[in-house]
Amino acid sequence: MSDSVLISEMTWTDYGKRVEDGKTPVLLPVGALEQHGPHLPMNCDTLIPTAVCERVARETGVLVAPPLEYGYKSQPKSGGGNHFPGTTSLDGETLVLMTRDIIKEFARHGVRQMAVVVGHTENLMFTIEACDLALRELRAQGVHDLRIMHMGYWEFSSEETLRKVFPDGFPSWNLEHAGVMESSVMLHLHPELVQFDKVPLHPPADFPAYDVYPVEPERIPATGALSSGKTATAEKGKYMLDEYVESISAALREEFRL
Amino acid sequence: MSDSVLISEMTWTDYGKRVEDGKTPVLLPVGALEQHGPHLPMNCDTLIPTAVCERVARETGVLVAPPLEYGYKSQPKSGGGNHFPGTTSLDGETLVLMTRDIIKEFARHGVRQMAVVVGHTENLMFTIEACDLALRELRAQGVHDLRIMHMGYWEFSSEETLRKVFPDGFPSWNLEHAGVMESSVMLHLHPELVQFDKVPLHPPADFPAYDVYPVEPERIPATGALSSGKTATAEKGKYMLDEYVESISAALREEFRL
Amino acid sequence: MSDSVLISEMTWTDYGKRVEDGKTPVLLPVGALEQHGPHLPMNCDTLIPTAVCERVARETGVLVAPPLEYGYKSQPKSGGGNHFPGTTSLDGETLVLMTRDIIKEFARHGVRQMAVVVGHTENLMFTIEACDLALRELRAQGVHDLRIMHMGYWEFSSEETLRKVFPDGFPSWNLEHAGVMESSVMLHLHPELVQFDKVPLHPPADFPAYDVYPVEPERIPATGALSSGKTATAEKGKYMLDEYVESISAALREEFRL
Amino acid sequence: MSDSVLISEMTWTDYGKRVEDGKTPVLLPVGALEQHGPHLPMNCDTLIPTAVCERVARETGVLVAPPLEYGYKSQPKSGGGNHFPGTTSLDGETLVLMTRDIIKEFARHGVRQMAVVVGHTENLMFTIEACDLALRELRAQGVHDLRIMHMGYWEFSSEETLRKVFPDGFPSWNLEHAGVMESSVMLHLHPELVQFDKVPLHPPADFPAYDVYPVEPERIPATGALSSGKTATAEKGKYMLDEYVESISAALREEFRL
Amino acid sequence: MSDSVLISEMTWTDYGKRVEDGKTPVLLPVGALEQHGPHLPMNCDTLIPTAVCERVARETGVLVAPPLEYGYKSQPKSGGGNHFPGTTSLDGETLVLMTRDIIKEFARHGVRQMAVVVGHTENLMFTIEACDLALRELRAQGVHDLRIMHMGYWEFSSEETLRKVFPDGFPSWNLEHAGVMESSVMLHLHPELVQFDKVPLHPPADFPAYDVYPVEPERIPATGALSSGKTATAEKGKYMLDEYVESISAALREEFRL
Amino acid sequence: MSDSVLISEMTWTDYGKRVEDGKTPVLLPVGALEQHGPHLPMNCDTLIPTAVCERVARETGVLVAPPLEYGYKSQPKSGGGNHFPGTTSLDGETLVLMTRDIIKEFARHGVRQMAVVVGHTENLMFTIEACDLALRELRAQGVHDLRIMHMGYWEFSSEETLRKVFPDGFPSWNLEHAGVMESSVMLHLHPELVQFDKVPLHPPADFPAYDVYPVEPERIPATGALSSGKTATAEKGKYMLDEYVESISAALREEFRL
Repeated sequence: MSDSVLISEMTWTDYGKRVEDGKTPVLLPVGALEQHGPHLPMNCDTLIPTAVCERVARETGVLVAPPLEYGYKSQPKSGGGNHFPGTTSLDGETLVLMTRDIIKEFARHGVRQMAVVVGHTENLMFTIEACDLALRELRAQGVHDLRIMHMGYWEFSSEETLRKVFPDGFPSWNLEHAGVMESSVMLHLHPELVQFDKVPLHPPADFPAYDVYPVEPERIPATGALSSGKTATAEKGKYMLDEYVESISAALREEFRL
Repeated sequence: MSDSVLISEMTWTDYGKRVEDGKTPVLLPVGALEQHGPHLPMNCDTLIPTAVCERVARETGVLVAPPLEYGYKSQPKSGGGNHFPGTTSLDGETLVLMTRDIIKEFARHGVRQMAVVVGHTENLMFTIEACDLALRELRAQGVHDLRIMHMGYWEFSSEETLRKVFPDGFPSWNLEHAGVMESSVMLHLHPELVQFDKVPLHPPADFPAYDVYPVEPERIPATGALSSGKTATAEKGKYMLDEYVESISAALREEFRL
Repeated sequence: MSDSVLISEMTWTDYGKRVEDGKTPVLLPVGALEQHGPHLPMNCDTLIPTAVCERVARETGVLVAPPLEYGYKSQPKSGGGNHFPGTTSLDGETLVLMTRDIIKEFARHGVRQMAVVVGHTENLMFTIEACDLALRELRAQGVHDLRIMHMGYWEFSSEETLRKVFPDGFPSWNLEHAGVMESSVMLHLHPELVQFDKVPLHPPADFPAYDVYPVEPERIPATGALSSGKTATAEKGKYMLDEYVESISAALREEFRL
Repeated sequence: MSDSVLISEMTWTDYGKRVEDGKTPVLLPVGALEQHGPHLPMNCDTLIPTAVCERVARETGVLVAPPLEYGYKSQPKSGGGNHFPGTTSLDGETLVLMTRDIIKEFARHGVRQMAVVVGHTENLMFTIEACDLALRELRAQGVHDLRIMHMGYWEFSSEETLRKVFPDGFPSWNLEHAGVMESSVMLHLHPELVQFDKVPLHPPADFPAYDVYPVEPERIPATGALSSGKTATAEKGKYMLDEYVESISAALREEFRL
Repeated sequence: MSDSVLISEMTWTDYGKRVEDGKTPVLLPVGALEQHGPHLPMNCDTLIPTAVCERVARETGVLVAPPLEYGYKSQPKSGGGNHFPGTTSLDGETLVLMTRDIIKEFARHGVRQMAVVVGHTENLMFTIEACDLALRELRAQGVHDLRIMHMGYWEFSSEETLRKVFPDGFPSWNLEHAGVMESSVMLHLHPELVQFDKVPLHPPADFPAYDVYPVEPERIPATGALSSGKTATAEKGKYMLDEYVESISAALREEFRL
Repeated sequence: MSDSVLISEMTWTDYGKRVEDGKTPVLLPVGALEQHGPHLPMNCDTLIPTAVCERVARETGVLVAPPLEYGYKSQPKSGGGNHFPGTTSLDGETLVLMTRDIIKEFARHGVRQMAVVVGHTENLMFTIEACDLALRELRAQGVHDLRIMHMGYWEFSSEETLRKVFPDGFPSWNLEHAGVMESSVMLHLHPELVQFDKVPLHPPADFPAYDVYPVEPERIPATGALSSGKTATAEKGKYMLDEYVESISAALREEFRL
């Protein structure tokens, strides 16, 4: 019997035994394929929440579903905009249906506790809509007891951590696109995928209080990063990742009485 | 600069240079999360075409997009049916929109040659529809020169290979669900994920000329496999995989003049 | 009181009496408007399954719904491709919704046994999806006991028949598009619609293991037929049609305990 | 070469020659499967406009597409409501997509003049929406010169005819559901399908200025007819049908310069 | 506590008390933003039914939801066509979903009696479809007792009133677009929004028995009005409005036993 | 000629003249019907952005479209959750289609500059998606020069203002739901709709880093407000509103060169 926490690597018989009583939660990482500056690979928003989920799963005994590797359209102020080559995004409705269908299938298997772990800010409202539609459709099928936690993993950074990692002040999660946090966690997880010599050095992007569509590329830093990750280190990455894993594990334990 | 063939592991700047002249094809593996008997992991239909694509990419210089890891509903006669725990499927429309959106985004990047490499029979008509819709919508945006190859990787088995691997006669691809071919390729690629001691030994499933919905589980082998993979070996797996890689590489070279 | 087996020709009062106890099955033919070579009319895929259904209905006492006369897009390897004038096809989602709505309405009338009888290969996955969606939505309305048989009528040819009708070897159902079977059945059913002097004489189409989209017409026989129907006869047509009627009647009797 | 006016009965080669210059209009009958009282078959709304179209086609040289045999949900005041057994209706969106897809395909063949000939009042707004969507999507594909006539065939009754056929006053087209006009035309076209001994004799239905949903069956005449067809005759039917054919032919000639 | 009849102006606590026992009906005005000739503002179809609803609400103790201010596409024969600047319309599906969602939400609050009060002819079939879909989806959620009245307010004009207001004969509601009734009611309700010196004087529009799409503007009166409102007066407007309020109030009292 | 800035109150002829050269921008307020505590009416999120738009329009000469009065589902951390009676919300897709359709229609009129002015946080991602879809569909129709500004009006508060209005520290816009800002602006705009004696006095809501669905009402303050508006005053409201009007006017002037 496999000891993987990844559902994809399990046989259906092993998996079936794990979920049949409805007490084993399933985590669904929802990422993106999105430019992350000239120094980071385009799968940051998938790799990081998937890594978080795997570690959480090993700590708490939950299972991890295959991640969604394509997300909603990158926005100027939180991802640089959807005009970069490489950024490969879905219409909102597509992401909603995808996430909805998957949640409903896990419920069919008997799962009654799920967590949607988002790695890409722009996904949040669409995965929330997916939770609502899935729960509504499940009720119509007689399933009334599925509970879903929904989160962006970065929301689990404590203020203390932010002070420590950003001694000169934490800009905002939106400006952190391809910045210190993501660069650090990637240096920790996958240094071979980071071209740190190309980390942008420009100041954080400066945006007005509104957006303009179609996106006008000249308003966005040409690197695609919204702030500089130059102070990133693998140590900071480990530190932040550990906190995500610990805090999300604690939250799961509390919500799902693990 | 990364030498990965995986788009997900590249920076946008490296990727952008590769595709800007439209001459580098992109391969999109489209798999499933589906029960594959008591001995194989549930990601066979994703792992195999992704492995094929990576090897083809290294041979021919093309690039590989992140795979779609969820597919259309498993059918009784080709996948055992969608009622097994673990099998996690999408509505047809969801798979169509997902594939359509991704194709359109690669076209936006400048890609003009794509191949959709399906690993799960049930996906085929929906990914075909996605190609049609993507091409139609791209025409409306002024893109008229995208060409898409569409294939199930298993269709590249030569008759000679089938005779060799199935000396007692090749049943059919549909009955091969979790059978000799998939078991062999998985033994070659990921022996650690195969519980070969659990390979089913029952005869191939016997189906009438029609289906009945809702699926009646007692009509399907309880193992989920539609035939026995007991004669599978890693050698057969390597042999078949090599042929897929070689033949698909040849087809890409011819169609896309690589 | 009408003795027609066609629901369309019945009054609602006569029909209502027939279905109120849920024991009378309804057959739904799902065809297409598709080129069938220079010698056959474009409604083959509707006429044949409708004729099968009518005969089955007279044998078994079931009823026949009006056929769907438009189907999913013709594919190169099974119908020559969707680029021919005359071929008039639906988006996948349209065919799904059409079939879904009709199934749900018959269930509302009290029908609890249905058979979807497909006459056009390309429809199959979409009518399967329609069955799944209809059953799911019906469950949400409290209907749990509808059973649907789903079939392509040609799948009821016995191997003996294929040996007899194709003494030189049966190519494949896909290559049979506008070939010996369809030509023969049409000669039997509607000789006045067959221009047999125009039957193509070319060898069967030869396709690679993949498709290319947009379809490149020069890869397809210019006649639109994928093999030659030159050996077709009305006798063969009667023979094959009789077998379809007999075998499908038997299957209905067994499944629905008629 | 077939001299049928029915596209379904033509080969693609014959059809292709007829439409390639864009000057041959195509008529699309859009009907319904709907209860029409205890005396008329449920296909009245399909049979009548299809018969009109065939006769018009023979007079004017245009072509007729296969009819849509399922329509929008029957409404209380114009069809008795959708609760009767036998009435088999589509969601609005389904009818829109169906009609849209078909129009677009005829345009792909080269057709530039179409007429949507509706036989079921409740279809009208949805087939109008279909025309609008089809034209919009065609423009996006570069087709700007398709013109579509849209009509309910009954609107071509002259006031003189109404006076003659309804000497005691014409109630309204809505109350004419399964009334004198439809009964008469069916007696003329298909007397074998009319059970005239069962024609309802009750007075016309009396409705308030509003509808109530869900439909309350006790507000609707139990026969399903909204007025009595007792004064119907085959002669009246021929008279009215002739006028439809003549007037619609004239309109086509004028609009499409035939 | 607010004594407004407008839900939008109430606090949720006040509103909640009003609807919790399911006995207080909610009225939903569904209008349009549509040209109404050179003399009337474009919100006639929203203002009038909203005014009717407010007055009905004050008479009967029901509540009024915020109106939908955008409706279905203006049609040539009932609104002049959708090609005028200012006319701002929705796709049919959009209007259906909008109305459906709102009905379902009121049902969630506990409301069990609703009236959809349409101010724009072209909306009618789509708001009917919305009622049907909302009721169907509510049943799937276990709500079986919602009743919805559906109406066009103008249908409540008595024949006596029409004789009085149109002494030279009532043309038809369709030709009344921007004609005597709407001009009169607007003169009564909002004289400051009427530029009566610009009221068109041309005769009623004359249409054939069919429509042509795309709309050909030269077939429509250039003013956008389909008949002349020159005989409109504020007195007639008050008279007609009073009748709408009185008759709809009576209908609500009867249907909902207020 | 009307001097209203509201498109709904203009005749089509007056409106047409204003927009035909494409230089007059149109503002679209997008609100919600949502509980706002026991002291504020449920239309705050519509009234405030509409008031902002009207004032901006009078300052800058732009026009204002009728507001959307229903928005996306209220979320626990920014609106208290969608379970309150009175909160009346749309599915995400509905809001997307509604906004998309309206933008496309204004572009059809000739408008080339628009601003979507959101009054309800939960709408933002869906109105962004609507902008993207509208622009994409317009490109397919040959319109390439529409520019859309997209904003939440509250984002135009300067830090100075926040310091002044929230002397004890600004919590966050999310916690401001029915708090000091909205209460103040409503006291300024519509004191008659505010029941200030019922303003909640409880401390701001305290939320974990994640959400749980279905929403568990006991996690939300029972008042529906997420913080106390007790320090609200009409003066603060005027001060904040003036800043919104001034700053948005300045932004419009700069972006659209007014």
